[in-house]
Amino acid sequence: MTVEIEEAVKLLCENVDEIKRTVKAGLKDGLGYVLAEDICAVYDQPPFNRSPLDGYAVIGEDTAGSSFEDPTVLKVMGKVYAGGYFDGTVTSGSAVRIMTGAPVPKGANAVIKQEDTDSGEDFVKIYKSVSPWQNYCYAGEDYKKGEVIVKKGTYINAGTMAVLSSAGITEVTVYEKPRVAVISTGDEVIPPGQPLMPGKIYDSNQTYINSRLTELGVPAFYLEHIEDNAEKMAKTIKKLSGRADFIITTGAVSVGEKDIMHKVACLLGAKELFQRVNIKPGSPTFAFVYDNTPVLALSGNPYGAIANFEILGREVLAKLCQNSGIKMRKVKAELKNTLKMKEGKSARRFLRGRMEEAGVYINEGNHSSGAVSSMLGADCLIEMPQKAPCDLSKVIVNVYEI
Amino acid sequence: MTVEIEEAVKLLCENVDEIKRTVKAGLKDGLGYVLAEDICAVYDQPPFNRSPLDGYAVIGEDTAGSSFEDPTVLKVMGKVYAGGYFDGTVTSGSAVRIMTGAPVPKGANAVIKQEDTDSGEDFVKIYKSVSPWQNYCYAGEDYKKGEVIVKKGTYINAGTMAVLSSAGITEVTVYEKPRVAVISTGDEVIPPGQPLMPGKIYDSNQTYINSRLTELGVPAFYLEHIEDNAEKMAKTIKKLSGRADFIITTGAVSVGEKDIMHKVACLLGAKELFQRVNIKPGSPTFAFVYDNTPVLALSGNPYGAIANFEILGREVLAKLCQNSGIKMRKVKAELKNTLKMKEGKSARRFLRGRMEEAGVYINEGNHSSGAVSSMLGADCLIEMPQKAPCDLSKVIVNVYEI
Repeated sequence: MTVEIEEAVKLLCENVDEIKRTVKAGLKDGLGYVLAEDICAVYDQPPFNRSPLDGYAVIGEDTAGSSFEDPTVLKVMGKVYAGGYFDGTVTSGSAVRIMTGAPVPKGANAVIKQEDTDSGEDFVKIYKSVSPWQNYCYAGEDYKKGEVIVKKGTYINAGTMAVLSSAGITEVTVYEKPRVAVISTGDEVIPPGQPLMPGKIYDSNQTYINSRLTELGVPAFYLEHIEDNAEKMAKTIKKLSGRADFIITTGAVSVGEKDIMHKVACLLGAKELFQRVNIKPGSPTFAFVYDNTPVLALSGNPYGAIANFEILGREVLAKLCQNSGIKMRKVKAELKNTLKMKEGKSARRFLRGRMEEAGVYINEGNHSSGAVSSMLGADCLIEMPQKAPCDLSKVIVNVYEI
Repeated sequence: MTVEIEEAVKLLCENVDEIKRTVKAGLKDGLGYVLAEDICAVYDQPPFNRSPLDGYAVIGEDTAGSSFEDPTVLKVMGKVYAGGYFDGTVTSGSAVRIMTGAPVPKGANAVIKQEDTDSGEDFVKIYKSVSPWQNYCYAGEDYKKGEVIVKKGTYINAGTMAVLSSAGITEVTVYEKPRVAVISTGDEVIPPGQPLMPGKIYDSNQTYINSRLTELGVPAFYLEHIEDNAEKMAKTIKKLSGRADFIITTGAVSVGEKDIMHKVACLLGAKELFQRVNIKPGSPTFAFVYDNTPVLALSGNPYGAIANFEILGREVLAKLCQNSGIKMRKVKAELKNTLKMKEGKSARRFLRGRMEEAGVYINEGNHSSGAVSSMLGADCLIEMPQKAPCDLSKVIVNVYEI
């Protein structure tokens, strides 16, 4: 059964559960994880009424009508630096020298910029008026004690880290990352480093998917290459079920005699999700679930494996991780060059491209699904219009960032 | 001296040298590095004429005029699987059963799809004609032996890894990553985990920049917090020069008494690049070079530090790494909501926002440069139009992805 891409995504995601296993981590180790708890503020942020600039803490009303020609003169009662604390109270006619980030002393309700004064030490001349509550950051202005500041389910990126750190958080409970296994197949495929015998080729699929998982922050926990042996593959999947959250295989999904993956699903009595996808490249992409473990069996053609990992595999990872940021981001862009396309293709076709400010370009070189070199410089997949106009350039296309 | 953003970038980049130190790495460890050598193909890719599908290797001319009603019958001389090799020669009237990825036997010049035959074992009925060189992947079609397949200076992402792996490469010479030191200042700043005494706040700047460096693939090699002590800071920078490729500090760049960074530059006799940038937030961003080491002194205001790290710091990192992918990516998008802006601001203003398919949204919450919580969910900086129309929504703005 051939399904549309959206149906394939739906079937996969319906059969994948979010990971609920959690782990406590020091804040520094939380980067790249998803928060498994609400984080509440234990303090106001800022924890005190704060000066946003260097100047003098004053009572705003005291400065009314001040000008360079007719300055207000205030007595300077003291000085407060960031990190310090002024224990007195500002009363009418007085001021406290204050630095950026320091707590505004009691009594004061505004800060006059240093540049609008004579920077006096014992007495200060104020050249401009400042309204009450001007240049005055309230305690809790950023967030308040008791408030949920970061919600459960939030992906912890650098911005989240900054917020958690500002709140004094030292430990977070996060969801474990999925355990992803990558198994390449193919009697012809050998790892780099071995001599290249006739009929053999060097692996690129396992390398791509393993590297991509690392880039996406979900490094593979298991890597293997298995020859075209259905029993051995079935045994390995059995062994991994319950340990792996997601198994990705490459190769052996077509109609040839050694295309073992459909037989593997039979041997395992697995629940098939789909057998083919209406996509070019990689239409023989096949998926099944064995013992609650989703298995995405990608094409052995490098670009078939790549495109379907990006389009389908990342959706599964996003669901497992509860992190929609793992999905491909879709944008619209103007196609800046063109490619002669064969007529009468009904499958949705994705080409390797690169995005620039002006629009999107189809990569040069060989676009066959067996070719890997056109991955160089590619940063997106371009969905080609299904009914191609004569001149494809300047058409607005869907672009998926990789 | 206040400079425009572009001038600040130019001054920084002119005073930063690309890192030329190289290191040999196993291919697996090369991910995320920049290649310091041209990589040539040692073999053709594919290394042999290859079948792109499951079927029969034939002489195309033999199949001319074949149809279901009037099939051509060919003698099947043998079978070749991917990874195998057929040692005979296909002659007129004969065929070899062939699987996807297998070498096309000598003599054959095309492959007929299995679906267009009766899948016969000793003799096969061919139901459709196939032209010579149809379904035939030439050796070297992807890339040829001796060709430079990946150029020096290429960033090694998963796509590059796939190409290198397909070529059997096991080791690469890459540029070392820059050694970046991050030093936060501020007597008021304490690390999470310490009790919050009056006047103190928890660090968020060092956490943000350290996390961001990790996200950008250039983890910090040195982290420190220094109190507002110019001599101590100068001594630390002296100690780091020659070891660090780039020093980023936060805080102490304004006009207050404890704003030590300008004094530090004096003490070191460093070459000042600029003292302020025409940007909001973080205009007091200051930069100098000491002993060939660039120092970017960011604002202590969290959002001031964040925005200028993204806008200026990443340019320095990109130059050091020879990887333009580290720079912020600029796109244009429609602003979908609005924010009341004060009149008469001449500085270029950047707001925290989030990109969606339809356009870009200014984040909710407190946008003051001292506020950190509006970083939550932000994935871009939005450059606000300098002369704001009354209704900002639907205006096309420059957006910088973070």
